[in-house]
Amino acid sequence: MINFQTAPNRYQHWRLEISGPVATLSMDVQEDRTLADGYKLKLNSYDLGVDIELADAIQRLRFQHPEVAAVVITSLKPRIFCAGANIYMLGSSSHAFKVNFCKFTNETRCAIEDDSKHSGRRYIAALNGTASGGGYELAIACDEIYLVDDGNSAVSLPEVPLLGVLPGTGGLTRLVDKRKVRRDRADVFSTLAEGLKGKRAKEWRLIDGYFPTSKFQEGIDTRVEQVVAAQSRRGSGIKLNPLQIQTTDDSRNYRYIRLQLNREQRYADLTVLGPEGTQPATVAEIEELGDAYWPLQAYRELDDALLHLRVNEPEIGLVCLRTEGSIESVLAVDKVLATNRDHWLVREIILHMARVLRRLDLTAKSFFAIVEPKACFAGNLLELLLAADRSYMLMDSASSIAVSELNAGAFPMSNGLTRLQSRFLAEPDKVDEIFGDKNVFDTEEAEELGLITFAPDDLDWEDEIRVAIEERTSLSPDALTGMEASLRFAGPETLDTKIYGRLTAWQNWIFQRPNAVGPEGALTNYGKPTQAHFDYKRT
Amino acid sequence: MINFQTAPNRYQHWRLEISGPVATLSMDVQEDRTLADGYKLKLNSYDLGVDIELADAIQRLRFQHPEVAAVVITSLKPRIFCAGANIYMLGSSSHAFKVNFCKFTNETRCAIEDDSKHSGRRYIAALNGTASGGGYELAIACDEIYLVDDGNSAVSLPEVPLLGVLPGTGGLTRLVDKRKVRRDRADVFSTLAEGLKGKRAKEWRLIDGYFPTSKFQEGIDTRVEQVVAAQSRRGSGIKLNPLQIQTTDDSRNYRYIRLQLNREQRYADLTVLGPEGTQPATVAEIEELGDAYWPLQAYRELDDALLHLRVNEPEIGLVCLRTEGSIESVLAVDKVLATNRDHWLVREIILHMARVLRRLDLTAKSFFAIVEPKACFAGNLLELLLAADRSYMLMDSASSIAVSELNAGAFPMSNGLTRLQSRFLAEPDKVDEIFGDKNVFDTEEAEELGLITFAPDDLDWEDEIRVAIEERTSLSPDALTGMEASLRFAGPETLDTKIYGRLTAWQNWIFQRPNAVGPEGALTNYGKPTQAHFDYKRT
Repeated sequence: MINFQTAPNRYQHWRLEISGPVATLSMDVQEDRTLADGYKLKLNSYDLGVDIELADAIQRLRFQHPEVAAVVITSLKPRIFCAGANIYMLGSSSHAFKVNFCKFTNETRCAIEDDSKHSGRRYIAALNGTASGGGYELAIACDEIYLVDDGNSAVSLPEVPLLGVLPGTGGLTRLVDKRKVRRDRADVFSTLAEGLKGKRAKEWRLIDGYFPTSKFQEGIDTRVEQVVAAQSRRGSGIKLNPLQIQTTDDSRNYRYIRLQLNREQRYADLTVLGPEGTQPATVAEIEELGDAYWPLQAYRELDDALLHLRVNEPEIGLVCLRTEGSIESVLAVDKVLATNRDHWLVREIILHMARVLRRLDLTAKSFFAIVEPKACFAGNLLELLLAADRSYMLMDSASSIAVSELNAGAFPMSNGLTRLQSRFLAEPDKVDEIFGDKNVFDTEEAEELGLITFAPDDLDWEDEIRVAIEERTSLSPDALTGMEASLRFAGPETLDTKIYGRLTAWQNWIFQRPNAVGPEGALTNYGKPTQAHFDYKRT
Repeated sequence: MINFQTAPNRYQHWRLEISGPVATLSMDVQEDRTLADGYKLKLNSYDLGVDIELADAIQRLRFQHPEVAAVVITSLKPRIFCAGANIYMLGSSSHAFKVNFCKFTNETRCAIEDDSKHSGRRYIAALNGTASGGGYELAIACDEIYLVDDGNSAVSLPEVPLLGVLPGTGGLTRLVDKRKVRRDRADVFSTLAEGLKGKRAKEWRLIDGYFPTSKFQEGIDTRVEQVVAAQSRRGSGIKLNPLQIQTTDDSRNYRYIRLQLNREQRYADLTVLGPEGTQPATVAEIEELGDAYWPLQAYRELDDALLHLRVNEPEIGLVCLRTEGSIESVLAVDKVLATNRDHWLVREIILHMARVLRRLDLTAKSFFAIVEPKACFAGNLLELLLAADRSYMLMDSASSIAVSELNAGAFPMSNGLTRLQSRFLAEPDKVDEIFGDKNVFDTEEAEELGLITFAPDDLDWEDEIRVAIEERTSLSPDALTGMEASLRFAGPETLDTKIYGRLTAWQNWIFQRPNAVGPEGALTNYGKPTQAHFDYKRT
């Protein structure tokens, strides 16, 4: 079982140093500390274990170190920044694991960009050696890239020429869409195994600058000073403590999340418990409560549960999202969050909730929201219902759902729209109507407003849900993944949706192709004495 | 070998009737007239042969029948409109053929929308019976959909529940992005094998209206009358004659296109010959010349050559685009086209050129543009160079390329941008610079402006091109397809790019998965006494 929780004092592959407003995140991968057997993590190559630490570090910077204005990502290995995802790990992994590994690493890189965009922290990739493949893809997720000019170090995306797969961790998309590299140059660069060095790399917009070895540290320091001087950040952070999880064979329970696995029927019930008891009313109270504050703890737990389901429970095809608690309490929390959203901690809590909800949107499982009288699909928890592929709400006067002002923009999807906007593309006026005088809706009203899919009555309720679950879990899991990836993201496309849609879908296709993963495929034969042989038919 | 040329008097599966401003295109698939053995085209299901006729009909309407304002697409079979792509054909086709088949049918449906959007012809799907799968996907490519309400006929997308594949001919994308069906309803509809009938289908935005059997024809006629009354169209069309093609074992030569196949090295030289002799200067002269007019004939030939390369020459991985002729002559043609672009025929010619260029963008082969002194990459032919994955221009004072005003918007890519805009996303000012006083550029100027990738001199020229060809054709064809699909379409996404990017990529992935095409897969076992069995792991 893969565990997604870690902390800096347990990191094996990264060193996180904070010096006032500057954090330095140094990669120093221990080649024997792998997540599975059969490969060594040479040359700062990575497996999922390395990326779980990176994701944790970025998350902690946001909550524990609000004073940090610049994050330098560099390497402790001489002459090598990072060689990317470990090829032997990829070559020996199942298709499903490869896909989930890439999705998580993509989310980590998007989290870097989310921090930069929304929290203003500037990420500087200090390439003190070659950055190849996923190594360059990590750099390109940063705001600025500087490369040592030592006559040897280069940036490269050698996946196509060497491995017969794509730079699929956002590489191709970020080349042309983020750094806006001319497409013919991107074509040349992506087929050039050895990559490009200083001058040409800069000319082609692949890096932002280069320094000779003797001036490299000075060059980075100078740039970091400029970044830091332009920002003033304060505050002391809060600590993110380990999550407490009780597990049995078929359940995984957190403080606010209950996950019940119905393995025979291939579905899970995931219940989010609403806030209980007195909740903080001021920023000071929130800071004091820290990571025990409901919206932070519940969503950290939800995030862990989603990752667990993805990687450790592949046969669970459907997740029934349920909530339990008081609608008023959830709305009260939203009110406090909305009122104080300019405070750094509240902003980080809201942004974290948004990232977890996007993780849900991008999870390759079906989601049904189930609304019963005890439920509290209100405000931030209403997003779960809106993120679900469909929803069932009991036609009963005791059931209700509610909106809060956080539904109006605090939790954008990857496509840049709110989930309400995505839902009502055809009738944008509906969104205004929903934010009218009334904010709590019973089943009839919810149905009338188009907020729910089905509203069976008491007599049909159990049968209808049971049949829906049975039907859903009987369908081809692959067809459902492709279908959900197409239907969930209507409307505009962004860098993120292009990465998760277009690029990932092509990569997954290639990850199935004999030219990559067959006995004569390039990925299979990399580093072996045997040679790859291709079926040259173009498809 | 599959032949993409046909004409109404040779149609086997469609009847095209023109009555003044109304065209009726009736599907009546002959079940034994298949393109390959091993399946029967029952219930108006289709194979590539059926779609080649549909594409031809739409093309001919545009050139031969400018007077037509409304096109009714219907069926001559009782109680069935169209059952979609033939499942036994799909089940027995190679992966590469399935992918190319879907791409062509997608292009045909986009051509319907292109006609509607740019030429104002209104397409009305008159569903006199059930439209399932590709049948509904054909309907949803039309502007309006009317369904007979006979208690039985439905619209449906049963691919996911019955076949374990996607409605990949634009179906899923058009549901949520074109018709803006609510995503939870789209989810339900796409998993409901039997589909939805009249009232509910309309409520869910799947159709625009429904009529009882006895009133169906009247309902359609009334709507057609309204459409026709709102438009006034005139003019008599020009005839599209069959293309004359000389073929040998390793060549395929048209009047203006020379295709030389270097099969051993897996690349082709595709040379476009520029206009020769006196060209029409007025619309009257263009109409008189008809389909022999260079921009129409050359691009019809180019279109045929591209389709031939895709389907009949799968092992050709690289196409070297070359041109021969006079830059001044090409620019003179562009001038006449630009001056007269409001005339229906000139508009259709330009729109056709744009579609052929988009067909090139979407072709899963690498393209290199090779510019030598005799070349005429000017104006419309410069688009070939800009569409190429990279370009090589001889550093020589006799070589030049040129822009015309048609490069500024007449030939949009699927992403809605011009190829120059897509190229210079990072430096939009460059586009203005290129449309400055000077419009012909020698190699040095072209390089300086960023219009070309490489400019080897005489000494290096042959070696550099030879090595580039060898390197390109040695790479994994699958990785190249995914790479090119990612790099060619930087910038915004549209309905079209979502269909060819996201949806197609997922479908291609699914078309490789054992759950669809393995011995126990749903596509393989459809209609057989054996049952599909899934590996339920979610990926």
